[in-house]
Amino acid sequence: MALTTDIGEGLGRWSLGDDDALLEIVTAANIACGFHGGDPGIMRRTCAISVKNNVAIGAQVSYRDLHGFGRRYIAVPGAELRDDLLYQMGALEVFARIAGGKVDFIRAHGALWNVATKNTEHAQAIVDATLEFNKDIPLLCPVGTELWRLGEEAGLRLIAEAFVDRAYTPEGLLQPRSEPNALLTDPDQAAARAVQMVKEGHLTAVDGSEVSVTAEALLVHCDTPGAVEFARKTRAALEGAGIEVVPIR
Amino acid sequence: MALTTDIGEGLGRWSLGDDDALLEIVTAANIACGFHGGDPGIMRRTCAISVKNNVAIGAQVSYRDLHGFGRRYIAVPGAELRDDLLYQMGALEVFARIAGGKVDFIRAHGALWNVATKNTEHAQAIVDATLEFNKDIPLLCPVGTELWRLGEEAGLRLIAEAFVDRAYTPEGLLQPRSEPNALLTDPDQAAARAVQMVKEGHLTAVDGSEVSVTAEALLVHCDTPGAVEFARKTRAALEGAGIEVVPIR
Amino acid sequence: MALTTDIGEGLGRWSLGDDDALLEIVTAANIACGFHGGDPGIMRRTCAISVKNNVAIGAQVSYRDLHGFGRRYIAVPGAELRDDLLYQMGALEVFARIAGGKVDFIRAHGALWNVATKNTEHAQAIVDATLEFNKDIPLLCPVGTELWRLGEEAGLRLIAEAFVDRAYTPEGLLQPRSEPNALLTDPDQAAARAVQMVKEGHLTAVDGSEVSVTAEALLVHCDTPGAVEFARKTRAALEGAGIEVVPIR
Amino acid sequence: MALTTDIGEGLGRWSLGDDDALLEIVTAANIACGFHGGDPGIMRRTCAISVKNNVAIGAQVSYRDLHGFGRRYIAVPGAELRDDLLYQMGALEVFARIAGGKVDFIRAHGALWNVATKNTEHAQAIVDATLEFNKDIPLLCPVGTELWRLGEEAGLRLIAEAFVDRAYTPEGLLQPRSEPNALLTDPDQAAARAVQMVKEGHLTAVDGSEVSVTAEALLVHCDTPGAVEFARKTRAALEGAGIEVVPIR
Repeated sequence: MALTTDIGEGLGRWSLGDDDALLEIVTAANIACGFHGGDPGIMRRTCAISVKNNVAIGAQVSYRDLHGFGRRYIAVPGAELRDDLLYQMGALEVFARIAGGKVDFIRAHGALWNVATKNTEHAQAIVDATLEFNKDIPLLCPVGTELWRLGEEAGLRLIAEAFVDRAYTPEGLLQPRSEPNALLTDPDQAAARAVQMVKEGHLTAVDGSEVSVTAEALLVHCDTPGAVEFARKTRAALEGAGIEVVPIR
Repeated sequence: MALTTDIGEGLGRWSLGDDDALLEIVTAANIACGFHGGDPGIMRRTCAISVKNNVAIGAQVSYRDLHGFGRRYIAVPGAELRDDLLYQMGALEVFARIAGGKVDFIRAHGALWNVATKNTEHAQAIVDATLEFNKDIPLLCPVGTELWRLGEEAGLRLIAEAFVDRAYTPEGLLQPRSEPNALLTDPDQAAARAVQMVKEGHLTAVDGSEVSVTAEALLVHCDTPGAVEFARKTRAALEGAGIEVVPIR
Repeated sequence: MALTTDIGEGLGRWSLGDDDALLEIVTAANIACGFHGGDPGIMRRTCAISVKNNVAIGAQVSYRDLHGFGRRYIAVPGAELRDDLLYQMGALEVFARIAGGKVDFIRAHGALWNVATKNTEHAQAIVDATLEFNKDIPLLCPVGTELWRLGEEAGLRLIAEAFVDRAYTPEGLLQPRSEPNALLTDPDQAAARAVQMVKEGHLTAVDGSEVSVTAEALLVHCDTPGAVEFARKTRAALEGAGIEVVPIR
Repeated sequence: MALTTDIGEGLGRWSLGDDDALLEIVTAANIACGFHGGDPGIMRRTCAISVKNNVAIGAQVSYRDLHGFGRRYIAVPGAELRDDLLYQMGALEVFARIAGGKVDFIRAHGALWNVATKNTEHAQAIVDATLEFNKDIPLLCPVGTELWRLGEEAGLRLIAEAFVDRAYTPEGLLQPRSEPNALLTDPDQAAARAVQMVKEGHLTAVDGSEVSVTAEALLVHCDTPGAVEFARKTRAALEGAGIEVVPIR
């Protein structure tokens, strides 16, 4: 099991989240590559700390959208999106290499993540970019999505991702951020739910029903209030339950 | 001798220069990496054509300045500049690799090129970025500049660059673009001057005096009026004079 | 009848279309405001020429999308879109005022124009921005669209827009740019069709059927091949048919 | 006497400073206009609160530099800079007007502020932009600078600005941010110094010498640690000393 977080999401003068604390806890870092957040200096620094802490390096690729933090769907043609993603992956690769590591996995950010659960063109762009960048590294994504289906079809290595800090709908999807209860607020409850997900493969949705979830990587958002607490308690709970928490390689 | 040109300098809807024609003539392409021009789609395409035409791929790195086309000095701290340059190099590397090539050399664009002739901090940033990116590939720059001095000091491989289409001052510098006679207008004269530079190591400056110039790579700007003609005639004149025109490797 | 064109769509080093020639022919200029093209210097210059040539000044507002030239739908929340549009209108107003004019009308560009034909949230954002900016100036848009309906509901002054250089579907919509026959290629035929639209209120769609079109302003795209010819012949044909071609005020 | 602060300096997902608290204390807001920070939504909101709290609205104009937060000098030609500044002023004017106010004054941000103390071309660009935008509103700047001199020459209304939270050199300039003691750390001491500046026209420089300072507006940076405390104590100290703290109109 990997514990992962979005990270390196500041920009120039602006910072976001407690990156240093989170990089002490997680085992895989989804590093912003400059299109929704992150800048070259932050990317270098985040890669350096990740390698030092034995945290796997992931390219957290996004639509080109600094003003919307990558949370706006953009109807970019698939081929252009693929190239935008490759650009980000290549940029991160340099800083990973300088730090003594490499890009260990790929993950889509924000709106792109959401859209790729259903939209074939953009999901395929992610798959194609990953294949062209490095066909041997895994792609993080939730089971049951269009992205998973296309990744599988393409022979990509896939890692099933689930969320520590987000509520789920009865369909097994994320409760939208526009809903008041989209984010969990109790780290202990979240940690317990994480263990349940991993051990039993299901969790309780917003309507009280049980939904199946496959989790090979558990994600905490770095800008969730109390993110460090969520990560720390989740890691402790997983290890307390005998689940090994390791990097993605 | 290499014949080189700035290329891939469009952006989205906007194009600049006759890239396809130039890539039939030159042997080294200084490809824009998205900070002064160029976008991921253009970078992919330019790398693909370059590899197909046996043209060496250079990362033409710039200040972050789309609105000023990289022609404005920006007082960015050296460490941030170094990381901005690495970001661009890494992004281009991906598209070079997909095309079946690699980044063969590095070159600074526009104001960065100018500034690095004298400014130690920014020249050092270029040297540091090149070393960190790939210490075995050459850096194009003019002899006698601060960049050349620091590159030499760092043990970088350097390639002496001179200009086909720009007038020179008696000091051996480029006549500034703000002067009316900054650009040569007669391709035949430029081609003859190029041969003279390579064979004899000097040229006639704007005031009629002779200045020494070392040329291992000759550059034509893609947005000089008649750029294709300048490149074609220069290549023909060089080859007519028995000078082999080859890629930078 | 107004004859209008998208204009001022360069950016820094990049230019697009023959603005000077078009501003001699049209009576209303849809001036790019920096979000899909245009920059402050171009905006100043375009306003100055427009006022000198008695051409009405329109704010051609767009999604924030320089890389996609405003031709990509962006799922920005309505309130943020409204504020993005106001920002552009205010910026243009300054240059119009310095030139001795004012922003005479509003028009949406590219994907925003398309989306606003159907999408209530984004159409409402355009209406709201226009009302807040200056409730007394007209909005250009095609009859029968969601934008028209909401503009009417809000009491905005509306000007019915039709296209000189684009083919229409049997539903009276624009043939998508992805189709080969989206653009007309014969300026004479386009000019004759323009007269027919104005005089008879209909035109021949791509399938040969007749569709109704209301035209109070006729638009030529500045980047259509032969744009100047399309504009010139259309103006001549309109005037030859006794139709007065005047600015939008 | 006005008490002023830089404000509205977030961007999209990123925030900076406690704007709401500061807008309860200051009487003039230097509002970021989107080139170094700020976005249309933040500009609207900041203008609305300013008008509600009877705080004067200032356009805090900057070089185009989101990645460097406007703290990097950019060698943009004067005419282009002037137009960039006008663009920002016009954009802010819209949101001021919607809030029921107007742009009451102009101020340069960051590197532009610094550069304009000495650089004639960029100082003149600020003066020219202010004149073209609204020749009747004042420009905030420190006495004794090139900007002050050119503003005076042009007949602009000038307001002498001094800093609550920054140390001064014996020459009466700001101690550079690169020095460890550039920022004051004790709000009480800063408040006492502010009263002294206003009442006696001098303060103690970093080397212990006394330097003359003319202060008609006192500025607290919103991102100084403890900014709210600095502002609150300064306002209380000024009022306690019988100095009226009022908006700039």
